[in-house]
Amino acid sequence: MKIALAQLNFHIGNFDGNYTKMKQAVADAKNQGADIICFPELAVTGYPPRDFLEFSDFIRLSDQTVARLTELADGIAIVVGAPSKNPVVEGKDLFNSAYFLAEKKILHVTHKTLLPTYDIFDEYRYFEPGASFHTVSYKGKKIALSVCEDIWNVGNENPLYTICPLDEAAKYNPDFIINISASPFSFNHADDRLGIIRENTLRYKVPLFYVNHVGAQTEIIFAGGSVVANQHGDIFDEMPFFEESLKVFDLEEVQQSRKNQVQQKNKMELIHQALILGLKDYFGKLGFKKAILGLSGGIDSAVVAVLAAEALGAENVRCLLLPSQFSSGHSVDDARDLAENLGTPYDIIPIKTTYDAFMKALDVPFKGLPFGLAEENLQARIRGTILMAFSNKFGNILLNTSNKSEAAVGYGTLYGDMNGGLSVIGDLYKTEVFELAAYINRHQEIIPTHIITKPPSAELRPDQKDSDSLPDYGILDRILYEYIEEQKSPNEIEAMGFESKLVARILRMVNINEFKRYQMPPVLRVSDKAFGIGRRMPIVGKYLS
Amino acid sequence: MKIALAQLNFHIGNFDGNYTKMKQAVADAKNQGADIICFPELAVTGYPPRDFLEFSDFIRLSDQTVARLTELADGIAIVVGAPSKNPVVEGKDLFNSAYFLAEKKILHVTHKTLLPTYDIFDEYRYFEPGASFHTVSYKGKKIALSVCEDIWNVGNENPLYTICPLDEAAKYNPDFIINISASPFSFNHADDRLGIIRENTLRYKVPLFYVNHVGAQTEIIFAGGSVVANQHGDIFDEMPFFEESLKVFDLEEVQQSRKNQVQQKNKMELIHQALILGLKDYFGKLGFKKAILGLSGGIDSAVVAVLAAEALGAENVRCLLLPSQFSSGHSVDDARDLAENLGTPYDIIPIKTTYDAFMKALDVPFKGLPFGLAEENLQARIRGTILMAFSNKFGNILLNTSNKSEAAVGYGTLYGDMNGGLSVIGDLYKTEVFELAAYINRHQEIIPTHIITKPPSAELRPDQKDSDSLPDYGILDRILYEYIEEQKSPNEIEAMGFESKLVARILRMVNINEFKRYQMPPVLRVSDKAFGIGRRMPIVGKYLS
Repeated sequence: MKIALAQLNFHIGNFDGNYTKMKQAVADAKNQGADIICFPELAVTGYPPRDFLEFSDFIRLSDQTVARLTELADGIAIVVGAPSKNPVVEGKDLFNSAYFLAEKKILHVTHKTLLPTYDIFDEYRYFEPGASFHTVSYKGKKIALSVCEDIWNVGNENPLYTICPLDEAAKYNPDFIINISASPFSFNHADDRLGIIRENTLRYKVPLFYVNHVGAQTEIIFAGGSVVANQHGDIFDEMPFFEESLKVFDLEEVQQSRKNQVQQKNKMELIHQALILGLKDYFGKLGFKKAILGLSGGIDSAVVAVLAAEALGAENVRCLLLPSQFSSGHSVDDARDLAENLGTPYDIIPIKTTYDAFMKALDVPFKGLPFGLAEENLQARIRGTILMAFSNKFGNILLNTSNKSEAAVGYGTLYGDMNGGLSVIGDLYKTEVFELAAYINRHQEIIPTHIITKPPSAELRPDQKDSDSLPDYGILDRILYEYIEEQKSPNEIEAMGFESKLVARILRMVNINEFKRYQMPPVLRVSDKAFGIGRRMPIVGKYLS
Repeated sequence: MKIALAQLNFHIGNFDGNYTKMKQAVADAKNQGADIICFPELAVTGYPPRDFLEFSDFIRLSDQTVARLTELADGIAIVVGAPSKNPVVEGKDLFNSAYFLAEKKILHVTHKTLLPTYDIFDEYRYFEPGASFHTVSYKGKKIALSVCEDIWNVGNENPLYTICPLDEAAKYNPDFIINISASPFSFNHADDRLGIIRENTLRYKVPLFYVNHVGAQTEIIFAGGSVVANQHGDIFDEMPFFEESLKVFDLEEVQQSRKNQVQQKNKMELIHQALILGLKDYFGKLGFKKAILGLSGGIDSAVVAVLAAEALGAENVRCLLLPSQFSSGHSVDDARDLAENLGTPYDIIPIKTTYDAFMKALDVPFKGLPFGLAEENLQARIRGTILMAFSNKFGNILLNTSNKSEAAVGYGTLYGDMNGGLSVIGDLYKTEVFELAAYINRHQEIIPTHIITKPPSAELRPDQKDSDSLPDYGILDRILYEYIEEQKSPNEIEAMGFESKLVARILRMVNINEFKRYQMPPVLRVSDKAFGIGRRMPIVGKYLS
């Protein structure tokens, strides 16, 4: 028996587009002699469809697409994810299902049992958990169908869940397992996934065919990396990362092989590819081609410019250099050098006369008050406004260049440098931005060295340095990581050797700046805990604040 | 037996503050001879604590507060909501529990069974559902304790759920039911609540004591309106709306009474009070006193100014009049008349010279291009920037004045008039803003009549009217309501008599503007479906777009 895995880049709600992709893949798989082709979880709707699932018209279109796919299941079986209606009145209206289509019929439907409802996942909001377990018989084989999270409770050892769906399905002695997934990328998750897949195959002593999405849906990036593992726990194949791929596997060959073909995973290489895919898909799926961003001469905007040029083509990335009276000469030079290295078009628009016009307008109400935060932020907002004027005039999407450290402590100006349609590096701590810059420069100097070596500064008043008001990023980032990713208490963080007052001050900054992050653009997610939909905090809370 | 209901205004994560409030209420209730005092769901932490629940330190502080409350349960029993730890490894770590504290001990803990996971609710993200059902015996009475949603599945008729917790508890023949709730306000929800409470008392033939939160937590407003109903389904009392209240009820009197004391509920009166409470608490809980907003001379900013002046005191609301070259003379006059009616301080700062400075800076890149969206938005962004400069300089929170209709169709400028810490009327359609203005003017002309009667205009180019690009608000709002609140399909909306092309155009506008709403401030929620955390939509989706 030959099984095809199709890791494709679907588009939420684009039923025709998704159908067309699958139709082509079915034809290709048939040409290669596949008996079964597998598409990922909710491939029909795209993942995550979020509250569109509450629109009966959206479900009607999904059902219609499943019906069209059923017509294609002729000489080949199709496994595909789509919502299905819960026939029982009680409980949620939908299941998150794996359809098994064969002989132009819906031969079987299995419902997802374990519904992730944490971090970015809201599946209990929409779906009723599946509660019955079967196998599907096809061409003399018994197949255990499963959806994503259902393989993540091996032997009931995952503390989140009380049921192990595959233990139930295993009672029917399946010949192999198919798992259709929508497993988002984070830079340290790929190895967990291989581990879980291995554990499943070893427990049930059968091969497992795992197919994942590839592509980005706003902030959530899917890496692909579909896996075939055999009954010995050997990884027969790990499919490509960050690209669409269709591969056909021979079941017997998988069973007999003892090869272990796992891809090398380098953190910065993965992040680099993920962000490029995230950028490409945000623009592509919204139907835009051109980006704009402000190049300050600092490292954050430099890294974003490089990524954008790679993702969209240098000619589609317009850089604005917007010096104020506080910008150092080298900032403009550094930014210009970068733009020239990349070959992106750039404009230099000094903001001093606009700044002066504002200060003149504010002359009476601000009379006698010293230069302060208002004047600093004003510069950032003038820049944000000029960037948006270009965006409106020429149809470029503004890229946000904030990093995770500054988003955490509120070191950014709302409606100024926090502007943008998409935050590209908002899930990278400042120290990781430096790592990524080094990775980008691994073969040649793309980012001018001076941008990387000079001390970080917002340049919003004379001789300002980030270190005037923030601890060294090496320290700051470790404290932030322990609080944001590890959810540690102040006491626990202090016990790691950080000064008590500093910990209290940093954690307070994180918490009182929730109002700013609420209005941040969506952040391309590459870690296990990104700001945005995966981290939901009260604004008016008073905890460590 | 005497039962006290304490509907208090808690603050998320402010354990000391919440404890102090409850301590005072316990003393008051004891003075009035109460045997039991009831506080709302998760009163200890404030509701909703959201992802703070994932911090073990936060749970430690909550447990500590429960322990302190236990010490107060001396001569009086205390019913209070707080998270409790799930002792079983499998499943979520916490229950959403009702503690019964008496004789300085935790006498009993009941866990919430029905965990709302829809709209603004994410309870399955944090909590394991309760699965055992008991009553508590206290002073010769058997009491069925329940938490919020647990009374919302009377006779298993709520299609969302498969269990009816009170049917289980009823098997122990309780003398009465206590329900501790965190039931958010929406203008048409109060009567549903009375209906459900009645149904429960009629089904179980015992009185029900229902205590709710009062106060706002960022966007979510709790109205109070706690209820005592008896075994005949009579409403013995409905406590005040929008204010803290402690009342002591005699069980026997409740049982014997046949009075039905239900408050009159007028939609605009409720909305008016809700928004004022929402404003008060947003400022109070963040520790701010002063607001700022732009007064355009239009109805939206006028209504927000009135609400802010009522909530914060006229002297704490600073109004900026920011006319451009396209503002009509009457706009400034109307805005000034309003500020003078209210007695709020105001400043007039024309934006033309700042606008000219921007246009000069953009002279080269914009050369030869006609006046368009970029120039319109530029005016809005200059205003937003001046408002934020005041906000930074003087410590005022900027109030957003967008309405639900314009947020729906994207008729607002991101980083311009969409700025603000809080959206005050973002859950009111334009037609409802007019209703609210009429309500505000019910006794005297607070909002100058001309503001209400003139045709709506953004005044961003010569002789602009909203009706140039949008249908009449009477039509627009009905289409929006059917799509947003009722989740109807284009076909269903057309079948109501709306033109097919118009419906398609409006629904497309709603969907392609999700990127703007993603960056909107939190919106005070007064309807069943507000933009923000209760409506979660993909940005890159392609459905009706």
